[in-house]
Amino acid sequence: MKIATLVFENVTALDMVGPLEVFGNIPNSEFVYVSPSGSVSAERTGLGITATAAFNEVESADILLIPGGQGTRPLLTDEPTLEWIRAIDKTTSWTTSVCTGALLLAAAGLLEGRPATTHWLSYDLLEKLGAKPTPERVVFSDKYVTGAGVSAGIDMALRLVQEMHGDEFAQAIQLGIEYDPQPPFDSGSPEKADPAIVNLVRVVQTAQDKLTPS
Amino acid sequence: MKIATLVFENVTALDMVGPLEVFGNIPNSEFVYVSPSGSVSAERTGLGITATAAFNEVESADILLIPGGQGTRPLLTDEPTLEWIRAIDKTTSWTTSVCTGALLLAAAGLLEGRPATTHWLSYDLLEKLGAKPTPERVVFSDKYVTGAGVSAGIDMALRLVQEMHGDEFAQAIQLGIEYDPQPPFDSGSPEKADPAIVNLVRVVQTAQDKLTPS
Repeated sequence: MKIATLVFENVTALDMVGPLEVFGNIPNSEFVYVSPSGSVSAERTGLGITATAAFNEVESADILLIPGGQGTRPLLTDEPTLEWIRAIDKTTSWTTSVCTGALLLAAAGLLEGRPATTHWLSYDLLEKLGAKPTPERVVFSDKYVTGAGVSAGIDMALRLVQEMHGDEFAQAIQLGIEYDPQPPFDSGSPEKADPAIVNLVRVVQTAQDKLTPS
Repeated sequence: MKIATLVFENVTALDMVGPLEVFGNIPNSEFVYVSPSGSVSAERTGLGITATAAFNEVESADILLIPGGQGTRPLLTDEPTLEWIRAIDKTTSWTTSVCTGALLLAAAGLLEGRPATTHWLSYDLLEKLGAKPTPERVVFSDKYVTGAGVSAGIDMALRLVQEMHGDEFAQAIQLGIEYDPQPPFDSGSPEKADPAIVNLVRVVQTAQDKLTPS
């Protein structure tokens, strides 16, 4: 089971590490971290992540994982990245994304007309890129599995492992990573959060987007 | 706000990345990744994480974050690591751990007689090291904040940010990382999971422990 993760400068680390922590329990799995630009730094925390391969070194995968982050924006028009995504997708059993990673799948043409999810602030852009934004935590559309913002990658991966290996295996992983979430507030989605908080996050994120080259 | 994270070979990546994704929203925060052995690979996924400093290069921090993983075991008797943890702890506002990172805090003598939590499979070892294992998701004891297994680091960090900066700030971060968890099962703790699943995870994890040098 070969699991290829795209890594890029200003990736959101939790987008990739959430699912990877789940996938890491799949027997005989092999992980490859593929980058357009060598090793990278995650956004906000500067966490350095090692790339283990360049595009021309990875020609297939069983699972393709595309995380999100501000670093997706310059890649939305980067042909080598989009070409690699399309080429790997031809070989996968599952093509997955978390957060704004869905924008890259859509920019590569893989979500045309398909229901898909992304970070709640990026529904409009996902729609412009041809997908049908669907405000759910995890969306399956044939082999395309998209997760909502950042932390949703854990749920996405558990749902996928359930699909691949059944309920008991997914439950064992959930217990192994002690995923018994107890957030201090019920403010994790724009429908549930206080409107003032939603507005605050929207303003801050829009400002960050404007500062990012695309 | 200087946030120092201990990184080591066979760290559990989600233990550190969960809290870091939350802390990354604290204004004017600076991140340093400190390692006894240079850059490291995470357990299971082999994810390569860059160390940015050695022990002698970091003498203080506002927040100290100690993640867990199989890689904690050899460090429980590693004096340079325990000495560094003790030295940094003298300077912190908050000393935190996720999962079996609590074992390192306890081995350093910092949790003596204190309530603390860790991965549910490590309560016994935590007790042997002098702490009072407390089966809660997040445990505050003065400036010592411990989180349960792996995914609990997200809850730990949100609770800490709430304590530091108030409810609204924590809610905004929760919405920003879209932390509206929807696990496919309610099997994230040994009290909630099916006993057969609990036993399965216990057997597998005990076998892994036996294979790890300590």
